[in-house]
Amino acid sequence: MDKIKIFSPATVANISCGFDALGLALEGKGDEMVFNKTTTNTIRITKIEGANLPYNIDENLVGIVAKIMMQDANANFGLDIEIYKGFKPGSGLGSSAASAAGTTFALNELLGKPYTKTQLTKYAMLGEEAACGSQIADNVSAALFGGFVLIRSYNPLEIVSLPVPKDLFVTALHPQIEIKTEDARNVLPKEVSLKSAITQWSNVGGLISGLYTSDYDLIGRSLQDVIVEPVRKKLIPHFDAVKNAAINSGALGAGISGAGPTIFALSKSEVTAKNVLKNMQSTYENTGIDFSIFNSKISTQGVRIVNSE
Amino acid sequence: MDKIKIFSPATVANISCGFDALGLALEGKGDEMVFNKTTTNTIRITKIEGANLPYNIDENLVGIVAKIMMQDANANFGLDIEIYKGFKPGSGLGSSAASAAGTTFALNELLGKPYTKTQLTKYAMLGEEAACGSQIADNVSAALFGGFVLIRSYNPLEIVSLPVPKDLFVTALHPQIEIKTEDARNVLPKEVSLKSAITQWSNVGGLISGLYTSDYDLIGRSLQDVIVEPVRKKLIPHFDAVKNAAINSGALGAGISGAGPTIFALSKSEVTAKNVLKNMQSTYENTGIDFSIFNSKISTQGVRIVNSE
Repeated sequence: MDKIKIFSPATVANISCGFDALGLALEGKGDEMVFNKTTTNTIRITKIEGANLPYNIDENLVGIVAKIMMQDANANFGLDIEIYKGFKPGSGLGSSAASAAGTTFALNELLGKPYTKTQLTKYAMLGEEAACGSQIADNVSAALFGGFVLIRSYNPLEIVSLPVPKDLFVTALHPQIEIKTEDARNVLPKEVSLKSAITQWSNVGGLISGLYTSDYDLIGRSLQDVIVEPVRKKLIPHFDAVKNAAINSGALGAGISGAGPTIFALSKSEVTAKNVLKNMQSTYENTGIDFSIFNSKISTQGVRIVNSE
Repeated sequence: MDKIKIFSPATVANISCGFDALGLALEGKGDEMVFNKTTTNTIRITKIEGANLPYNIDENLVGIVAKIMMQDANANFGLDIEIYKGFKPGSGLGSSAASAAGTTFALNELLGKPYTKTQLTKYAMLGEEAACGSQIADNVSAALFGGFVLIRSYNPLEIVSLPVPKDLFVTALHPQIEIKTEDARNVLPKEVSLKSAITQWSNVGGLISGLYTSDYDLIGRSLQDVIVEPVRKKLIPHFDAVKNAAINSGALGAGISGAGPTIFALSKSEVTAKNVLKNMQSTYENTGIDFSIFNSKISTQGVRIVNSE
């Protein structure tokens, strides 16, 4: 294989109760990237569309991850990379994760598939570190594995693929505001009450049970976050109004996607999701804040090949 | 139905990672109780074997629970109750829960089955309150539902039945020491680090995934408790040695059953469980502390009718 074009999905991390432990991949929203083998010894980013990101490969996580993987594999080729961002960085939908996961997936194909998805996740986590300062796995593993994932353990890294109930739809509303990663981190409590922690892991248990049994109501009842949402939602204007609009329109539940500001909702059936979108949208239209909104199925596949030569 | 004899199982609550959220029912260990309708207006405990418990129905949780249920149902009969304890109170295997769950189950049968298992759990929690001071649901719901249970929520009470991998065996070693409920409570941290909480709910997620997929190794890796076990194990002499003996003999994992002092281990296959029992036993034989030990399958049924007339 000399050339590969891939699609790497946007992802929702945390999913209310599962802070730093759960993620899911979206079907229709994501980045495309093209990786061309060259006969040079260099890695170049030759095109970036859809976002203002650095071309310098030591400053762009795509270049950083590609460089490490190619060094580790003693690759005997160079690389020209084109990046087509399909959604905005800083949205809370795993923009850096899509780039990082897509890069590891494409490199693995070009190298002859030496790596497992878990190994690719580890490489992609280096991209997350370059972009966000820490090796978080939830978005990159969701992008690479597809569907719902559980990060059971970081040390050693263990990703558990969870089943995807077929009628589950995601609505995502992205207020065009910036939340600084630092702010999103600083509001997190260092300590939580044992009582809240129990509530949280009971809901993680309920959510996962609901995924295995396609029990949509159980999934909905489990979409509760008593630890992170109460502090982070203050950074997201009109969060409660949007969440209430979603739930009042029939959504199973709603919460903050990753560190925000995107607000996500889960619904059973496309019809409900359309109604949920409409009402979330009309709620935000009155706020004066720019936003984008879309519906998506959950991608069971994750990063995928668009075409290759 | 005028008379019913029931078996109510011993239970393991918490199951390492799932403090206050998970429980399981044992197959071969438990209490038997006989409930005889009488034409009087009174509830009497006429026989207690296997433990030194009060006959006064206002002091014995069996009487307390029976009285409340019969009042609520306007029962037009009296009751003579015989209690045959099959395991010791204060073991951490849900002795009070077996009594409470068994009582609610039997009364429900005698009353013509007006209640769901969740409603029975609520009544049985009143028995737990009488015995332990708080309305905990993990042991009583495991006894009533059988198998593995998740208490997804207390308010409203929601019990989720989880699947039972068929080759799973429990070994339980009960050191004959007394741990005061007060002590077991006082060592619990009021606050835990967010990091530990994340580790805990990731393991809850892993354990539940393992139950749904019969992935025994995943179950084993998930049997970790970074919050409660580290503080409560200090109340249980030689806990680490027994746990290590279990794991070194092939157990998937081991931990504290409920508030202890019983130490439980889970194994895949009866052969492994026998080996685990042997090594846990020989470890404890050197301690000079009396103990009992047994192996059990997991009861998928929970409380059951032995016979009825």
